[in-house]
Amino acid sequence: MFTPSVQHWLDLAGIFVFAISGALLAVRKNFDVVGMALLAGATGLGGGLFRDLVIGAVPPAAFTDLGYLLTPLAATALVFFLHPQVERINRAVMVFDAAGLGLFCVTGTVKAYGHGLGLAASAVLGLATAAGGGVVRDVLANEVPSLLRWDREVYALPAMVGATVVALLIHTGHLNGATSGAAAALAFVLRLLALRHNWRAPRAWHRRSRRGKEGAEEV
Amino acid sequence: MFTPSVQHWLDLAGIFVFAISGALLAVRKNFDVVGMALLAGATGLGGGLFRDLVIGAVPPAAFTDLGYLLTPLAATALVFFLHPQVERINRAVMVFDAAGLGLFCVTGTVKAYGHGLGLAASAVLGLATAAGGGVVRDVLANEVPSLLRWDREVYALPAMVGATVVALLIHTGHLNGATSGAAAALAFVLRLLALRHNWRAPRAWHRRSRRGKEGAEEV
Amino acid sequence: MFTPSVQHWLDLAGIFVFAISGALLAVRKNFDVVGMALLAGATGLGGGLFRDLVIGAVPPAAFTDLGYLLTPLAATALVFFLHPQVERINRAVMVFDAAGLGLFCVTGTVKAYGHGLGLAASAVLGLATAAGGGVVRDVLANEVPSLLRWDREVYALPAMVGATVVALLIHTGHLNGATSGAAAALAFVLRLLALRHNWRAPRAWHRRSRRGKEGAEEV
Repeated sequence: MFTPSVQHWLDLAGIFVFAISGALLAVRKNFDVVGMALLAGATGLGGGLFRDLVIGAVPPAAFTDLGYLLTPLAATALVFFLHPQVERINRAVMVFDAAGLGLFCVTGTVKAYGHGLGLAASAVLGLATAAGGGVVRDVLANEVPSLLRWDREVYALPAMVGATVVALLIHTGHLNGATSGAAAALAFVLRLLALRHNWRAPRAWHRRSRRGKEGAEEV
Repeated sequence: MFTPSVQHWLDLAGIFVFAISGALLAVRKNFDVVGMALLAGATGLGGGLFRDLVIGAVPPAAFTDLGYLLTPLAATALVFFLHPQVERINRAVMVFDAAGLGLFCVTGTVKAYGHGLGLAASAVLGLATAAGGGVVRDVLANEVPSLLRWDREVYALPAMVGATVVALLIHTGHLNGATSGAAAALAFVLRLLALRHNWRAPRAWHRRSRRGKEGAEEV
Repeated sequence: MFTPSVQHWLDLAGIFVFAISGALLAVRKNFDVVGMALLAGATGLGGGLFRDLVIGAVPPAAFTDLGYLLTPLAATALVFFLHPQVERINRAVMVFDAAGLGLFCVTGTVKAYGHGLGLAASAVLGLATAAGGGVVRDVLANEVPSLLRWDREVYALPAMVGATVVALLIHTGHLNGATSGAAAALAFVLRLLALRHNWRAPRAWHRRSRRGKEGAEEV
């Protein structure tokens, strides 16, 4: 899809921005520096680790490439010293996070398909690669995963769209560097639009008509 | 045990009822439709996924059979439009859930044994297949797993009994369609009796004598 | 490193003390006896299970050795009948837990390296073996993992030191029974010193200068 070297640097960049979000949550939860590093690592590597365990690619990439282990530590060091500044550019962090989301939903789908899974299962694993780290982060921090919450802008849907487009590209034999880059860009732009326009997914049918009365129930 | 085709439909039915319980919890927690689908999928497929990772059956069945991926989506659609009605027949849902529990503790034990595990380990994995999805559901929704709570009717015990009976049947060479069906029925009936008569497992020794004073401590 | 038989008994002892901590938390959370057994098992076996899944050693040791399954049940029985007494010797339990931490960070690193992982990845898996069970315990009990919390004595750091020393011993070709025992003892003593002197890891930079005002924010 890309040259291995470009692919590798893009992977590290995605892990880095996800790790930043883990380290920032650790600061908000008042964890110590060890907790920051562990939460950063779990966020950056959790999605790919789940994918690799499911497709049987053991040991997972997270444990065979030293750069994958060191990148979350770099993110931890940055947040440790500069977390007020990082919080202040939170909007920029979310843009990078959206880029990681777009990138990982594509690479995750491609890797799963390359290990022999079907197109639908590959797309599901692409979604898991992109969104799984954030779920691990929130579960470890004892929070309701923001992926599931109604009062958050859609996060999984852009990754689902990107992963589905990649699956269709594979099916029709049109997957190459340009089209997969376009799929990643599509997921990225959808996530940015969701953030800008506060796009939310609907809740169950009868919940929606009572939206105004439900503030107290929100989790 | 059963013909492959019957087995497959029973599996899908079990996944469906477990997924219903996940989607209903998502509605109660005010999650959006994406959260409903993810929680439904995690509940329906989580137990079998854990079993398959442990026995090394990768990619797990959840990712090789399209029906396994689509069934939680069907459950999500049903709950999305009809959740007040589904809540109203909650008693019926729990009966189906008990049927899924009985079925999965049997099939999980048989599959684990077929992959070379010992009898005790197979029974433990049978329990994990049957009860694991509910644990994943509660952890993702940031709730204390109802499996662990004292103030819930026993859930794991019927599955343990069913899985143990299957292990004994394998050991004595009497496992066949009829006896494994009987083991599933036994777990099913035990769970129904537990629901009807509010059977609870005891808490630790000295807790029990102070039961009246402990309301405030209950989690 | 040690003779297989000594190694096996040490493993069971480590599982036993971790399982005790799981069963005690279950009592504090008012879980029933089934919840105690499941939490004890998850705490005692969770770290090694994660390591074995990552290195591809399936089925994991927890499911191939009957002693590994029975040890948490023994811990559950002990806590079930004697939990006030076990709570009273909580300090002794923490000493044993520190011993388990020292032991598992060494054996986990050695096992991961033996399955072909690099030195850094092996050390990370040694840490995961030693500290993973406690994380699983806290996540299942719906608590913030004490491993991540600032207001707890350092737990991961002693295991990191022990695992790193083992990795260096492997690298320099000096790993044997005596040196690995010394690495385990080092982690053990560091954890005991942390408990005695309330050693805590720092929080992020600017948090530390406002320490006095932050009581309310602590999680």
